[in-house]
Amino acid sequence: MILRQAPELQTIHWFNTDAPLTLESLLGRVVVIEAFQMLCPGCVSHGLPQAKRAAETFSSDDVCVLGLHTVFEHHAAQGTVEALAAFLHEYRITFPVAIDAPTGNGGPPKTMTAYDMRGTPTLLLLDCKGRIRKQYFGREQDIVIGAEIMTLVCEGQNLGSRTSHAGGRGFGRMKSKQIRGRARVTAP
Amino acid sequence: MILRQAPELQTIHWFNTDAPLTLESLLGRVVVIEAFQMLCPGCVSHGLPQAKRAAETFSSDDVCVLGLHTVFEHHAAQGTVEALAAFLHEYRITFPVAIDAPTGNGGPPKTMTAYDMRGTPTLLLLDCKGRIRKQYFGREQDIVIGAEIMTLVCEGQNLGSRTSHAGGRGFGRMKSKQIRGRARVTAP
Amino acid sequence: MILRQAPELQTIHWFNTDAPLTLESLLGRVVVIEAFQMLCPGCVSHGLPQAKRAAETFSSDDVCVLGLHTVFEHHAAQGTVEALAAFLHEYRITFPVAIDAPTGNGGPPKTMTAYDMRGTPTLLLLDCKGRIRKQYFGREQDIVIGAEIMTLVCEGQNLGSRTSHAGGRGFGRMKSKQIRGRARVTAP
Amino acid sequence: MILRQAPELQTIHWFNTDAPLTLESLLGRVVVIEAFQMLCPGCVSHGLPQAKRAAETFSSDDVCVLGLHTVFEHHAAQGTVEALAAFLHEYRITFPVAIDAPTGNGGPPKTMTAYDMRGTPTLLLLDCKGRIRKQYFGREQDIVIGAEIMTLVCEGQNLGSRTSHAGGRGFGRMKSKQIRGRARVTAP
Repeated sequence: MILRQAPELQTIHWFNTDAPLTLESLLGRVVVIEAFQMLCPGCVSHGLPQAKRAAETFSSDDVCVLGLHTVFEHHAAQGTVEALAAFLHEYRITFPVAIDAPTGNGGPPKTMTAYDMRGTPTLLLLDCKGRIRKQYFGREQDIVIGAEIMTLVCEGQNLGSRTSHAGGRGFGRMKSKQIRGRARVTAP
Repeated sequence: MILRQAPELQTIHWFNTDAPLTLESLLGRVVVIEAFQMLCPGCVSHGLPQAKRAAETFSSDDVCVLGLHTVFEHHAAQGTVEALAAFLHEYRITFPVAIDAPTGNGGPPKTMTAYDMRGTPTLLLLDCKGRIRKQYFGREQDIVIGAEIMTLVCEGQNLGSRTSHAGGRGFGRMKSKQIRGRARVTAP
Repeated sequence: MILRQAPELQTIHWFNTDAPLTLESLLGRVVVIEAFQMLCPGCVSHGLPQAKRAAETFSSDDVCVLGLHTVFEHHAAQGTVEALAAFLHEYRITFPVAIDAPTGNGGPPKTMTAYDMRGTPTLLLLDCKGRIRKQYFGREQDIVIGAEIMTLVCEGQNLGSRTSHAGGRGFGRMKSKQIRGRARVTAP
Repeated sequence: MILRQAPELQTIHWFNTDAPLTLESLLGRVVVIEAFQMLCPGCVSHGLPQAKRAAETFSSDDVCVLGLHTVFEHHAAQGTVEALAAFLHEYRITFPVAIDAPTGNGGPPKTMTAYDMRGTPTLLLLDCKGRIRKQYFGREQDIVIGAEIMTLVCEGQNLGSRTSHAGGRGFGRMKSKQIRGRARVTAP
């Protein structure tokens, strides 16, 4: 089976990052994209909290968690930079978030269209080579998401170890706070 | 750092399995052990449901989820085969569960003592070589547990691919229901 | 419509009370009975926590919350005083709890039969005159239960005010901790 | 103690009602006011769902549940009719909601100020005579809210029964769906 290369993000504004991010610049890391709308109840109750937990669990050296505000309805209420800024502030979202580029014709925005997303929340997992490995519309359990992200992390480290550091452990780094404070997977 | 080899289980009765299991017979697979007591509220509300989700998420070819009934208090109420049988039936626990062997002196049972467990629930993660990689007393998040189990799965497949099947993908198998119905990580 | 008088409790053991309680002795107060089994998952996750909240919310001068252990299955595991004592200790249940009297023939116990209960959890609300005003099998929302109990409290105080203190306010007393610390319904 | 008469609502727009509501027109009924902001996480996760449950539990003949959008921050994001319309649509809020009248100077809006509200969510309970009986900032349990609302309903029916229908039962009507389908408090 041929995996699809993830289309580049088309955005008009970024929050929580000094400079706009591109998927190309993130090659070599797993990328988790949470596509959401600020007035989508399922995004607020499930999708965004899960993305936050992913950002807190994995090392940013291995995994980049991004939000993508894919406004396809309620443009007057959701479509401004001010509205999203207020939302991100109130919900304490600190990972990078972009506004998906509108088409100007009132339809779904450009990145959403390029990925054929069916709605929000949509969770995307891209591997270290920038390929779409999962695109999920709706809810998925945390234990499954955790396992899937780590699969891609290990796969990426494996690729690396074959070429450059043959002694690599194939072991996913998790946030040091996690490893020390709570998770306590003892390294070999 | 030297990893500790997991002491063999010392048990007196098994449920949900045709024959008693030993850690030795499980070498080559990741082993998840949920040590619990049937009247421990944290085990009932958190530990056992999490173990169930782990059993539902990972392929049994990769990961073996076990319960261990480590009765160290309320022996009259919790200590019989009948009591645990009723509990497992009511809570729909279908993965293998063993009763930890009592010492006969009223203290903590033998396996619990051999692992220096502090109480229940305790979650243990053993790698494919039978070494203790995590021993957690209390609660841990599902996303962390999912990632940690998959780390050990990938590590094991990696070890395997080096020796026997060099073309191995280093990719953790998850339950087919998961992959098809919900998780949709596209294989390369 | 004729309301049914609640059959007297038939019990063999009481916990959390100096002397056995009878419905007759509780006339003049609203009585909330949570019929449960210690190995019934719905009782543990929903019914008993709700009964605890009822006991914490209402003044014991107005409302008496009781547990009734109606063992109709898994007698070996649930049917002893020791088993229930361990359960009540672990789940921090401090309101009075009785063991429903077994028939000796293995069928449902005597009080359960007298009330035609369909299973556990069953919630019973008795008014100040000892009549059954609600008998619910399964789950009910807290806001509904809170309103229903208070309806019966007000009704009882109303009855009282007609006979003895004509200037009565018809106002349900709630626990002083509630009223001062959180609930803050200002008295007229 | 002298109870404070609730200041009249000062509003600029209403949703889910044919005509603007006034507290004066609601005299004789208990009034529940949920003061919220659409981007306040505690309002979205707790306050508004609780108000919905109150609206579903009590008869509208006895209890009127209102929302009041008290915007005191993020005016650009929350302050328009379009923004709130989108929010109410997405969160399926069908009880009447008003926008609190802004002062024009960027401070808290007029009704919020008149009630000395400390923030959102604030829950207000007014009795049948239009007096403030509770003003709660933050979270309160459903069982407490249900009991408190019913206290005021019973009190109001009591007042009524003294003057007009002496044979009144002093019994709070709850939604017929509730009484038949789930709650089953048998009327005398």
